Amino acid sequence: MIIELKENARAHAATLAEQVKAFHITYLNKSYLITGSGLKEVPATLEAFTENHWVFANDIQLASRKFQDQKREVAIGKTVIGGQTNNTILIGGPCSVESEEQLRSAAELLVSMGLTTLRGGAYKPRTSPYSFQGMGLDGLQILAKMRQDYGLNVITEARDATHIDEIIEHTDIIQIGAKAMYDQGILRACAKIQKPVLIKRGFGTTLQEFVQAAEFVLSGGNPNVVLCERGIRTFETGTRFTLDLCGVAWLQEHCNLPIVLDPSHAMGYAYGVNSLARACVAMGIDGLLIEAHPNPKVAKSDASQQLNYDEFRKLHSDLQKVAQSVGYQIV
Amino acid sequence: MIIELKENARAHAATLAEQVKAFHITYLNKSYLITGSGLKEVPATLEAFTENHWVFANDIQLASRKFQDQKREVAIGKTVIGGQTNNTILIGGPCSVESEEQLRSAAELLVSMGLTTLRGGAYKPRTSPYSFQGMGLDGLQILAKMRQDYGLNVITEARDATHIDEIIEHTDIIQIGAKAMYDQGILRACAKIQKPVLIKRGFGTTLQEFVQAAEFVLSGGNPNVVLCERGIRTFETGTRFTLDLCGVAWLQEHCNLPIVLDPSHAMGYAYGVNSLARACVAMGIDGLLIEAHPNPKVAKSDASQQLNYDEFRKLHSDLQKVAQSVGYQIV
Amino acid sequence: MIIELKENARAHAATLAEQVKAFHITYLNKSYLITGSGLKEVPATLEAFTENHWVFANDIQLASRKFQDQKREVAIGKTVIGGQTNNTILIGGPCSVESEEQLRSAAELLVSMGLTTLRGGAYKPRTSPYSFQGMGLDGLQILAKMRQDYGLNVITEARDATHIDEIIEHTDIIQIGAKAMYDQGILRACAKIQKPVLIKRGFGTTLQEFVQAAEFVLSGGNPNVVLCERGIRTFETGTRFTLDLCGVAWLQEHCNLPIVLDPSHAMGYAYGVNSLARACVAMGIDGLLIEAHPNPKVAKSDASQQLNYDEFRKLHSDLQKVAQSVGYQIV
Amino acid sequence: MIIELKENARAHAATLAEQVKAFHITYLNKSYLITGSGLKEVPATLEAFTENHWVFANDIQLASRKFQDQKREVAIGKTVIGGQTNNTILIGGPCSVESEEQLRSAAELLVSMGLTTLRGGAYKPRTSPYSFQGMGLDGLQILAKMRQDYGLNVITEARDATHIDEIIEHTDIIQIGAKAMYDQGILRACAKIQKPVLIKRGFGTTLQEFVQAAEFVLSGGNPNVVLCERGIRTFETGTRFTLDLCGVAWLQEHCNLPIVLDPSHAMGYAYGVNSLARACVAMGIDGLLIEAHPNPKVAKSDASQQLNYDEFRKLHSDLQKVAQSVGYQIV
Repeated sequence: MIIELKENARAHAATLAEQVKAFHITYLNKSYLITGSGLKEVPATLEAFTENHWVFANDIQLASRKFQDQKREVAIGKTVIGGQTNNTILIGGPCSVESEEQLRSAAELLVSMGLTTLRGGAYKPRTSPYSFQGMGLDGLQILAKMRQDYGLNVITEARDATHIDEIIEHTDIIQIGAKAMYDQGILRACAKIQKPVLIKRGFGTTLQEFVQAAEFVLSGGNPNVVLCERGIRTFETGTRFTLDLCGVAWLQEHCNLPIVLDPSHAMGYAYGVNSLARACVAMGIDGLLIEAHPNPKVAKSDASQQLNYDEFRKLHSDLQKVAQSVGYQIV
Repeated sequence: MIIELKENARAHAATLAEQVKAFHITYLNKSYLITGSGLKEVPATLEAFTENHWVFANDIQLASRKFQDQKREVAIGKTVIGGQTNNTILIGGPCSVESEEQLRSAAELLVSMGLTTLRGGAYKPRTSPYSFQGMGLDGLQILAKMRQDYGLNVITEARDATHIDEIIEHTDIIQIGAKAMYDQGILRACAKIQKPVLIKRGFGTTLQEFVQAAEFVLSGGNPNVVLCERGIRTFETGTRFTLDLCGVAWLQEHCNLPIVLDPSHAMGYAYGVNSLARACVAMGIDGLLIEAHPNPKVAKSDASQQLNYDEFRKLHSDLQKVAQSVGYQIV
Repeated sequence: MIIELKENARAHAATLAEQVKAFHITYLNKSYLITGSGLKEVPATLEAFTENHWVFANDIQLASRKFQDQKREVAIGKTVIGGQTNNTILIGGPCSVESEEQLRSAAELLVSMGLTTLRGGAYKPRTSPYSFQGMGLDGLQILAKMRQDYGLNVITEARDATHIDEIIEHTDIIQIGAKAMYDQGILRACAKIQKPVLIKRGFGTTLQEFVQAAEFVLSGGNPNVVLCERGIRTFETGTRFTLDLCGVAWLQEHCNLPIVLDPSHAMGYAYGVNSLARACVAMGIDGLLIEAHPNPKVAKSDASQQLNYDEFRKLHSDLQKVAQSVGYQIV
Repeated sequence: MIIELKENARAHAATLAEQVKAFHITYLNKSYLITGSGLKEVPATLEAFTENHWVFANDIQLASRKFQDQKREVAIGKTVIGGQTNNTILIGGPCSVESEEQLRSAAELLVSMGLTTLRGGAYKPRTSPYSFQGMGLDGLQILAKMRQDYGLNVITEARDATHIDEIIEHTDIIQIGAKAMYDQGILRACAKIQKPVLIKRGFGTTLQEFVQAAEFVLSGGNPNVVLCERGIRTFETGTRFTLDLCGVAWLQEHCNLPIVLDPSHAMGYAYGVNSLARACVAMGIDGLLIEAHPNPKVAKSDASQQLNYDEFRKLHSDLQKVAQSVGYQIV
């Protein structure tokens, strides 16, 4: 249950929260208590302080359209998505940060196209100890340098809780990867800040659990959460994963968080990325993550799915037309 | 292996086929023998008769882009899809034929929008014996009447081999349903005719098996096969199925058959159909199957996923813009 | 809803059934009407004729433990399973009937071990037209010959409705394969006879749908249905399928039908069949289908998963011990 | 590739490892270098120091039967599993530590039956922030007290990397949960110790990735890893998960690590746990994790799947018979 406190009750909100073991947040200048969804009636002790309340069938509460019907607005640096913006942000860059030279070329590509946000993995959540594990802090610092040199926003992934503070420090939007999205060490750290957080859906994660991961961040006081669908694991192995666009339609209907899609990881093959990305944009979504590499064949990770720069430019051009046909613009 | 016979060998193609236990078909005025893909070299006895040959890694052969790179053209009545047409056919109508009145209203809706093809189930492949099982032959005859009265093409589904002859007789394109797509009684009957056949992917069927079902029809001599993706079964139950658009990208890359999508069955809820249908059209596909009912709430099957007629008109309008943005038109 | 009719109402049971659009069957000397589970109260017109009635949450009705708590007894020839028997029938034989010699060797193996039932596929539901499709009617006749020569029961699979009558004629228990289990042409034909029917679960089929397929046969008047779990399709491809033993525990709790398991198809590799078969037997099940071939390497289908005869004898010996530990015996 | 160093090369193993960017471990008194499986030939610089080497098709290396064919022996306190022991350890206790009283009753139950290892969750990896999150450090300390008072081994789960040091300190075997098994913060911490580590398979994790998680620990120098299958997520929702016993047969064939099964989480319902646990034991496995609670109805987590103590005693008795039938004993 979400309880909006009356104005004169805000001063002792923390005390009230403790009484009913609720979370307490301030959102858009109002004060809320949030309990589990099992609670269906306002506790007697709170009645006098309650301005408004919402009852829920399950633990999707702050992210629910029932609580707030319009889509949340989230700013990634100076670029705003969600809300009434009709912006679809196109985030590009390599799977892994491999060198300053590589990242500089990606940054220049983005700048030349008027794009604003650069991706690149520093801590790679590889499934084998014998693969390239990412450049770690060195990679983070290259990203930070690009931010400084080109005025780009940067996004990179937290692999586990041991380096979440570094990630928070060096990025404009924190990415919680598909394998880390149940990691409460990461989620709770992201709940304490105000920087935007992009949570990727685990490939074995239900939509319900996915949005509940966002509730960890929202109920902790950070309202700036973006959901990212990147493909689920199914019996089909002709493609790397299965991008769940039915799930995206479900999220659009039930949740108030902006939605970003990652067709590169879902498909696993560059040949399908353009076609899938067009499909995503036609749904009226808030962003895309696309992997691009100056020379995909020699990439240290995910070589088969990264676009080369010509393909990325073609993609940008194709997406602009599709976005326009549904009333959106690529930013 | 596919072997194209020299012109002077065509007369005894049947004898040659028997020698190597191959299928023999004529396609676009040429004569072909088709063996299993295990065969990697032209048999010595056939060398003198071979004009051309194609070796394959697996049993996707006639449907493969390696055999024929351009997409096949298939005519549904007078409406042509595939090939160079850039047509996306929008097929509409109710889940089940329930009455002549109901189907007449659907027919008039389509005609008013310039659409050409009417869907409606007569033999319903229900999973419970206690549900509405469809009107059977009576339903087929109502469909046939609509064809006559409105000049529409009609499509309906064969549930099992016992009524396949009736279906073939009364429709312009035969639909093989997701639960029937391994049914060789149906597939072999469809291989002997020239009417187009739309094969729906089983919800537990790999892409490989899906296209191999088409090979049953193609290798029997009917080149007019259309593939239909309609959602696979995954762990996610927030939506009815998961529409596999990664799979569609795979089919576009590897196969030469036109592709139709069915977002209604995949989603299972009317609220997501518009958004998903736009996604499908943005991929540059050859058709859509959309369920629409004059009053979805009282539908005898699939009540939750059928659009009402206002929603269907809105869909048509939205899809025209998206189609245009990728160089296609809705027909 | 299931309604048990009073004794004096049985004479006009058919008329009553028609009035409420119900199925009418006689089972264990009592007369029942069965409607959809949506009906929650006995119709007023039937009240006077109703001895007893059962209301259900869903369309698992005749197969439900709520209707009949004890497991049904089914006779396969002279071998009885289910009920109070604590028999686990071990059905063996090759994937496909390939020759009389091959099948004779399998028959002699079974007889030497005191086993009673021989399996072998005549109509193979292959997913490619270019694979071995089975010997068809010739295969059926070889099976029938083995029955006559060795006094064995035989079981073989119906691939589609076109040959269901031949299958019914030549076998002691009809197998409906995983790809054919939604086939109403087959299900309805099996509903009209009294021979036992083994229904395999489709690899993309929920437990609910699986048991509802049995309801097609039961509600048509044939009470002799056996369920067979043979593996479902999941994201894991290290094995051919995933044997769903959680599902078996669910079936044991909720359904009154005997349960047979097929670890050969689930595993796909001979190395795991012994271990898995022991697991199955330890659950207290009613039967096992195991593929065995005189020389698996040259088998025309499923070569990798068939046991050779030494492995089959070892399996039999191992299973006897496990069966005994749970109070069952292998028959 | 795994390279066994000659005895006289061991002194400079670290230097050699650095040269070829390999891991260096000592195992059973021998010294090994481990590189990625992409390396197929011994580097020239190492030839003179190489006693033996193993080439692998993929990154399952130290865990592979190709490297060491016999199953590894792992000691949990004084209880040894794996190797030639034929021991199946039965680990029992509640889902969550809720109070000292509750855990004391569980400890006394185990002791009364001669069992040695107590489970109980202190940091619960819940999917909602609004559910009971576990007692944390307080729970750990109750577990530690039971160890001291009853001489039991204790096992509990690490939820994320922020508390892994506490877990390592207070337990006899560290459990890495299904949602945390990709967490390199945890895996790398466990690689540096010698205490046994039980890794649960993620519900969306392939067998290949599962064993590769073990390779993170093994290649870091801790040879004491146990694999735990606890059910994967499939389309079937009648049960909570699907216990993958085909996967267990695969692990038995390909890997040298002991295998523990968790039928409680897989099934999700107490009614199926006995039947499934018998299935597991019949495969000849090394252990079972079973949830038991003094009063399951009031449990703070997983209420539906925990056995009461009578059911747990019955389970123990049933499993002893099955274990004996396959040459194992319950410890």
